[in-house]
Amino acid sequence: MTDKKLSTESYKGVRDFYPEDAAIQQYIFNTWAKTAESFGFDRYDASILEPSDLYRAKGAENEEMVNEQTYTFTDRGEREVTLRPEMTPTIARMVAGKARELAFPLRWYSIPNLFRYERPQKGRLREHWQLNCDIFGSDSVAADVEIIALAHQTMINFGATNELFEIRINDRQLMQRLYRAIGLNDDLIPKITHLNDRKNKISREEYLDALNSITNDETITEEVIMLLEKSDEQTDVVIGLEELGITNVVFDKSLARGFDYYTGTIFEIFELDGEGRSTGRSMLGGGRYDNLTSMFGGKPISGIGFGMGDVTMRDFLEAHNLIPGKARCTSAKVTIIPETSEQNLYAEVVAKRVRETGVAVSTDLGTQKLDKKKARASERGVKFIIVIGENEAITAKDITTGDKKSGQITEIINFLNTK
Amino acid sequence: MTDKKLSTESYKGVRDFYPEDAAIQQYIFNTWAKTAESFGFDRYDASILEPSDLYRAKGAENEEMVNEQTYTFTDRGEREVTLRPEMTPTIARMVAGKARELAFPLRWYSIPNLFRYERPQKGRLREHWQLNCDIFGSDSVAADVEIIALAHQTMINFGATNELFEIRINDRQLMQRLYRAIGLNDDLIPKITHLNDRKNKISREEYLDALNSITNDETITEEVIMLLEKSDEQTDVVIGLEELGITNVVFDKSLARGFDYYTGTIFEIFELDGEGRSTGRSMLGGGRYDNLTSMFGGKPISGIGFGMGDVTMRDFLEAHNLIPGKARCTSAKVTIIPETSEQNLYAEVVAKRVRETGVAVSTDLGTQKLDKKKARASERGVKFIIVIGENEAITAKDITTGDKKSGQITEIINFLNTK
Repeated sequence: MTDKKLSTESYKGVRDFYPEDAAIQQYIFNTWAKTAESFGFDRYDASILEPSDLYRAKGAENEEMVNEQTYTFTDRGEREVTLRPEMTPTIARMVAGKARELAFPLRWYSIPNLFRYERPQKGRLREHWQLNCDIFGSDSVAADVEIIALAHQTMINFGATNELFEIRINDRQLMQRLYRAIGLNDDLIPKITHLNDRKNKISREEYLDALNSITNDETITEEVIMLLEKSDEQTDVVIGLEELGITNVVFDKSLARGFDYYTGTIFEIFELDGEGRSTGRSMLGGGRYDNLTSMFGGKPISGIGFGMGDVTMRDFLEAHNLIPGKARCTSAKVTIIPETSEQNLYAEVVAKRVRETGVAVSTDLGTQKLDKKKARASERGVKFIIVIGENEAITAKDITTGDKKSGQITEIINFLNTK
Repeated sequence: MTDKKLSTESYKGVRDFYPEDAAIQQYIFNTWAKTAESFGFDRYDASILEPSDLYRAKGAENEEMVNEQTYTFTDRGEREVTLRPEMTPTIARMVAGKARELAFPLRWYSIPNLFRYERPQKGRLREHWQLNCDIFGSDSVAADVEIIALAHQTMINFGATNELFEIRINDRQLMQRLYRAIGLNDDLIPKITHLNDRKNKISREEYLDALNSITNDETITEEVIMLLEKSDEQTDVVIGLEELGITNVVFDKSLARGFDYYTGTIFEIFELDGEGRSTGRSMLGGGRYDNLTSMFGGKPISGIGFGMGDVTMRDFLEAHNLIPGKARCTSAKVTIIPETSEQNLYAEVVAKRVRETGVAVSTDLGTQKLDKKKARASERGVKFIIVIGENEAITAKDITTGDKKSGQITEIINFLNTK
């Protein structure tokens, strides 16, 4: 037994969700789930523990990522385990595992927590939650249109107007054709993609230097720049979105996205400042992949999906004052306050009776004075207070109107129900 | 890049939740959350990562538990981290951390996933989820009554009748008084409690031998046996529950509960076979603790709470056929089926229009034949199928009644809305 006081701090880089934060978190999760389900997406889930090989499989680059950027440890059975840093390898594993039984195309969503071992900074924590939506097994451009429409609807359902965000779209196949047309070697394309992914984090000069050292040819560098800055493609995906009435869309040839596994459409939603300028905040990103499941053997299954994080989402909602009042209140509609602790048990009896009518009810078993308990109930946003006095006397008060009613339990229940 | 095929198996002892399992899991979580909120409990949450000291603090016994039964590893900053094996230390840490700001009594609930490093077996996995409900800062017997009433209501809200479960209650303070009265030394009481906790896992003979070796006195052993078997106490908690109409309650002096931190009322819900006999399956357990927060310094804050696991809950629901049909269907009410892939994009347009009326809609972008797609929609439990043919022809069918309607989008929407 130690006498040293334990710290009440959480582990570094993760969050405690006290009720006021948990309520906002639940509001985000519920809006995500409801939107995905309105598109007929089925929820799936998995453990945060995954065999480390799942992330190593894609080669040396991933080996480094696993070793340096994930929580990876060896269990007592000598198995290497990783706390999942992203959900895509997990869904690929699950889809490949039952590929013969599943009826494609699939629409699946999940709200996993993900772990990254890196220095915590604003908007980048060691643990965050993410909405993940994927369509597996359709090559139709309608699938691309639908997944982007779902991403758009998610923003709309949070109360964001089209003035507050824009959807940037690019296509890796198209870019490959365009790069080839100006004489770029295929080997250089992924390098340019990675450079473009960092474009907004470096200066124009640094960008040009880096591009030159990739192409090793100033003429080609100039052609690449011209190519990227001419963003007027009317692709099938952009046209499809327009048919759905989704117009805050920009085709952006410089959009890169980090992951190597994307093979076609890629997209990202950026916050706007309300006057058409990007603030630089990325809300979500995704893309099409054609061979994620092939590393498990069997036929490759194509898919398209996106991920959207809770930290950015909450920052966005707060920046635009979009968190609704209901996400800041207690769930209880009625609080029952015993005048003294003598009435505590009878308060529980009344609570049960009122609750049976389908209303959420809390009791206040505190030892504070009556007025203090009443003030506390008001602050928490309940609609009715019921005070229990001596001899089982019951008085209900409608906080909004000030109306009061005393009487038997049944009369009080009637009073609440007519409100 | 390796050519070896990756396994699609999950990590040992954890579960993948394919949609049919995730739907049942969500049904369990939603029922838990709704019931806790109907009692005015506020949701909280925290990371699964906790400093290992949180579990070591209580002495050598815990040191062993942390080392042998938890996932504990050292991060690259030389911090020892544990994947939480239970939620109580976390809530104690959070409550102690803001003890001055929080308005007591608190009613908090959470649905965390918990990790134990042990050989997986039926009903005991390495990762499971648990409903945790606690009232902090009330010594009133009404708090004991309320938390047990909440546990009872949870079972009722899952459709369990009183014939399918019973609530066993004991009181550690009362037991201490009774043990002292027959001359037992205080040191021996926790040993008898731990033995009682294992009572149902060993034979009567083994139990008596173990009890004898604790008391070292056959007369006292006999008195302990007599004491434990006479279970007719009418405590305030039992009387209080009766006033709430909760009568499937047994006061059971042999009820032990494992955790040392309980100091008063302890309780556990056991499954019954429908004829009054226990099946041995424990559904949930909890108790009162008076000093959980004191290890963080500051004043001790009393509390009472319980935890209820998802694995047992699902086993119970399946055993009694209590999983509702809605937990087995897709979320979509309408599926839109393009006759050929030519109609895929228009299907998305129709889907968006119908969705805007507040209905969950999926599209089937598969390449299968029309009949196969219709059959699949029926199997998934949708209420309406809308087929998109050439020239934007739309036909809706009510699967329940067989009614059909062809026409413009607005006519189809009217058809759906009158249903």
